Amino acid sequence: MKGNREFSPDWSEKPPDPGTYRSIFKWGGPDTFKHPNRKLYAVLKDRLQLTDDCFKSRRKEGRERVVLNRPIRLGDEHIDGLRRIVGEVNVAVDDYSRAKFSGGKTTEEALMLRRGMPRTVGDVVVHPRDKNDVRNIVDYCGEHGIPVYVYGGGSSVTFGLEAVKGGIVMVMSTHLNRVLNFNEADQTITVEAGIMGPQYEAMLNDAPRVFNAKRRYTCGHFPQSFEYSSVGGWIVTLGSGQQSTYYGDIYDIVVSQEYITPAGVFKTLEYPATATGPKINDIMKGSEGAFGILVAATLKIFRYMPENRRRFAFMFPTWHAAVDAARETSQGEFGMPSVFRISDPEETDVALKLYGIDGSILDSLMKLRGYAPMQRCLLIGTADGERRFAANVKNRVKKVCRAHGAMYLSGYPVKKWEHGRYTDPYMREDLNDFGIIIDTLETGVTWDGFHRLHEGVTRFIKTRPNTICMAHGSHFYPQGTNLYFIFILQEDEIDDYRDFHGKIVDRIVEYGGSLSHHHGVGKLLAPWMEPHLGTVQMNTLRALKRHFDPKNIMNPGGTLGLDLPDTGLRKR
Amino acid sequence: MKGNREFSPDWSEKPPDPGTYRSIFKWGGPDTFKHPNRKLYAVLKDRLQLTDDCFKSRRKEGRERVVLNRPIRLGDEHIDGLRRIVGEVNVAVDDYSRAKFSGGKTTEEALMLRRGMPRTVGDVVVHPRDKNDVRNIVDYCGEHGIPVYVYGGGSSVTFGLEAVKGGIVMVMSTHLNRVLNFNEADQTITVEAGIMGPQYEAMLNDAPRVFNAKRRYTCGHFPQSFEYSSVGGWIVTLGSGQQSTYYGDIYDIVVSQEYITPAGVFKTLEYPATATGPKINDIMKGSEGAFGILVAATLKIFRYMPENRRRFAFMFPTWHAAVDAARETSQGEFGMPSVFRISDPEETDVALKLYGIDGSILDSLMKLRGYAPMQRCLLIGTADGERRFAANVKNRVKKVCRAHGAMYLSGYPVKKWEHGRYTDPYMREDLNDFGIIIDTLETGVTWDGFHRLHEGVTRFIKTRPNTICMAHGSHFYPQGTNLYFIFILQEDEIDDYRDFHGKIVDRIVEYGGSLSHHHGVGKLLAPWMEPHLGTVQMNTLRALKRHFDPKNIMNPGGTLGLDLPDTGLRKR
Repeated sequence: MKGNREFSPDWSEKPPDPGTYRSIFKWGGPDTFKHPNRKLYAVLKDRLQLTDDCFKSRRKEGRERVVLNRPIRLGDEHIDGLRRIVGEVNVAVDDYSRAKFSGGKTTEEALMLRRGMPRTVGDVVVHPRDKNDVRNIVDYCGEHGIPVYVYGGGSSVTFGLEAVKGGIVMVMSTHLNRVLNFNEADQTITVEAGIMGPQYEAMLNDAPRVFNAKRRYTCGHFPQSFEYSSVGGWIVTLGSGQQSTYYGDIYDIVVSQEYITPAGVFKTLEYPATATGPKINDIMKGSEGAFGILVAATLKIFRYMPENRRRFAFMFPTWHAAVDAARETSQGEFGMPSVFRISDPEETDVALKLYGIDGSILDSLMKLRGYAPMQRCLLIGTADGERRFAANVKNRVKKVCRAHGAMYLSGYPVKKWEHGRYTDPYMREDLNDFGIIIDTLETGVTWDGFHRLHEGVTRFIKTRPNTICMAHGSHFYPQGTNLYFIFILQEDEIDDYRDFHGKIVDRIVEYGGSLSHHHGVGKLLAPWMEPHLGTVQMNTLRALKRHFDPKNIMNPGGTLGLDLPDTGLRKR
Repeated sequence: MKGNREFSPDWSEKPPDPGTYRSIFKWGGPDTFKHPNRKLYAVLKDRLQLTDDCFKSRRKEGRERVVLNRPIRLGDEHIDGLRRIVGEVNVAVDDYSRAKFSGGKTTEEALMLRRGMPRTVGDVVVHPRDKNDVRNIVDYCGEHGIPVYVYGGGSSVTFGLEAVKGGIVMVMSTHLNRVLNFNEADQTITVEAGIMGPQYEAMLNDAPRVFNAKRRYTCGHFPQSFEYSSVGGWIVTLGSGQQSTYYGDIYDIVVSQEYITPAGVFKTLEYPATATGPKINDIMKGSEGAFGILVAATLKIFRYMPENRRRFAFMFPTWHAAVDAARETSQGEFGMPSVFRISDPEETDVALKLYGIDGSILDSLMKLRGYAPMQRCLLIGTADGERRFAANVKNRVKKVCRAHGAMYLSGYPVKKWEHGRYTDPYMREDLNDFGIIIDTLETGVTWDGFHRLHEGVTRFIKTRPNTICMAHGSHFYPQGTNLYFIFILQEDEIDDYRDFHGKIVDRIVEYGGSLSHHHGVGKLLAPWMEPHLGTVQMNTLRALKRHFDPKNIMNPGGTLGLDLPDTGLRKR
């Protein structure tokens, strides 16, 4: 028994060699790892009905060097044409570049890369040096009918980056990552679209030195993909950060944008508000590269005041009590919290294990007070902003939570969560190495529809034997929240997994959730777009597509469901 | 001397007779009046260089009954067709209906009505009973190429309602004014588009009785036109209420909308947030009837807690100090105030006279402390929301204002302002009766561009001799505010006034303001749309227009600058 209990899988700490498939799909740096701890490992074995033996031999690890054997279908004259535009050094046709920049972090993409079979590859990778290069490339591709795909940080989980029709892949983050303007009076910054999260935030935090500013600032947008996503990617996929409850979704943060489209080049005007008809600035947000290419954006920035941050965590007796408290907090008009998350019973159970609380004195105390495992629910959060504002938010949240039967847990669980906020996805590689899939789907929903959706989707996922299904709400609004489902299962057959995944999406739509709250649509969710939005709304998006991109060269092959063949419509 | 000083004009208190032109253009009910007080009258005489004699005989008052002598160009068979759709009683072809429902409250409209010459009239007025009627009318008009104009509350100040091409005018407020759903869990209400402000707010305030709700609510949207505007009108023109700094513009308040367009009927989905591509819900906001007809909308509602309201007012030594304090308040992250207004020196001067502060002990105290007339600037505001939140906002504002050299004036000026917040426009009739025009233009601007815009526009207006120009900011955002210019001048020639008005708009655009912050574009500002937004953005709006309304029957004749002939482009 003891030997069994002490078995620990040989989680890989071997950095992927450069040029390998694994170096493409691995989350984090080559030598950064995060492994499931022993409690999480025990949960996996228990719930997935696995034994230690299942963790003794690895599946395909994708450690081979990328070799495509896929011909470049774009003629040499065009590759030369692109070289003339951006310079020889900024055009790549090697197998590794073609594989790396033609996809993102969707589960199926990783599974296929492990098998040495990228789902799609572009013909040629181009690194534009500035917006004029982008314009010249779009003009060139328009003239010759060449598909154009755009790669920012590479973190799409919706096949958003797949070069379905070949053609060129334009990498924005290589060069288009500069600051164009910093305006402290307006509290805005203008950046090129390819700038990556950490660089962007570090500059703002260090604004007095970098920009000679009076204060330090923060971008306010911290998606889990923060380390490996670009500002442009945030905008065109309608991302949402982990502090969106306070700072807003990226939709709310963008002040103006500059686009290069086949129908022309434009920069929307910078106003705090206007009443000059439908707002082109908003029409472009979420266009996922199907209308044109975002080359620069002006965004709101916020005062960086970490010294004012208040942390709090509570345990609720039930999921309903936690949800009610979250709703009261969102509607109470005492100011919105910043981080704010409620975990359902299964996620709470796993979280307590991940954070080392399970089995602690605190755990005993909770149980003694009647907060029963697999019923109790965790809420964690922070308050940001001016000092008294933040203090009042925390005090009001405390009052609301206590009125809903919650026990205060101090700020400790928040600090544990903060520690892993970007690195938890690194565990995916460990699980995939042993044939275990961990994946997520997410949706937006009104308060009124919340429990029906949560119960309906969870029930469906649990119909699959030996499957973990956890859920949380993490982006709050007076009118509702998101629901983020994390599911873990043992599955080696990609087709079977795809089928299961699709059926979860079916249930999300059936039970009244939005098709996506903040991952975007890409080509993954495209088949559901028309059933979800209806034909009249889809025709409006198609009219915009025809206007901006009459030759369908911008991210073609399903993006947003705009150019799916009729057979692509999801039958319900 | 004494006799002269005591002269008071014979401001009219005679209600307009039913059926007269005056009954159409008069603000407020037939027997509600608000007259300039003696101090304001003295200011008018002084600044406009007028004598009491100028206020002894009235200009054209428009007290004649409406008689059009304009033939109905729509064939009898179509009028019969409309009667078959909505019923005989809901179709009107009388002169009064045609004149009343084919225009709004734009200054030039009022001046023309005084002369017995409405600028435009539709052929027939239709009062649809429900959305099916609207759909059948739109279908009918599409089939026969008949222009469709929509009338909500009638408060447009941008020629938004003018039936330029004749055809039919559809009045939404007659029947389409019902509540379709009240959802307390989501804090939303769904109403038909024609519901008027006061009815809407009264129901929400009285929600426990009307909807059996647990709490009382408020709509949060209080434009100056509140008494005479409809919820649908707020949305399609992108209105902004006097408490928008806290509650948001109507753009932020709308959750979903239902439209009937020539390209189809749809209702956008109700989610607190989505990432399913460009948001059709947002594309329709501000469409001013040019894409289709808004028949219903779901809006956020807010907790009605007047007991928590805090009021405050401050006097600043200079305009720059007031603006700096307003910016610091907007960016300080301690929560936004609700009402928030800063008045420039000239408006401050007039406001102190209107509010009875000029010449009071408080005034003496201010002067003693060095707050000099025509330099000093008034700030008034309120804080709403949860009790401690509101208290903190007021305390922080106080701190900010004092740091910028302001003197606290108690909440008294706010109460005076609240008293006149909807009725001040009633004074327009008094002034127009004596050939004095009072009009407004408004714009949005970033903090960085604020003073250049204010100075540039004010300077231009003041180049006209004997002209009052007042300005305030009243809608605040971290990135900027609006600027609202009020100008008063003696002018009898409409052509000359139109020319002067257009040149002010030229200056607004030249000095970097938005073409409109919250009045909308209508047909008045249409010629500036393309120079302002640029051709590529205008082409996007035109593509949407072609999609929704390929036959150009929806509010045709210039709306949003979509179907202006090339000669209509404003030359700069």
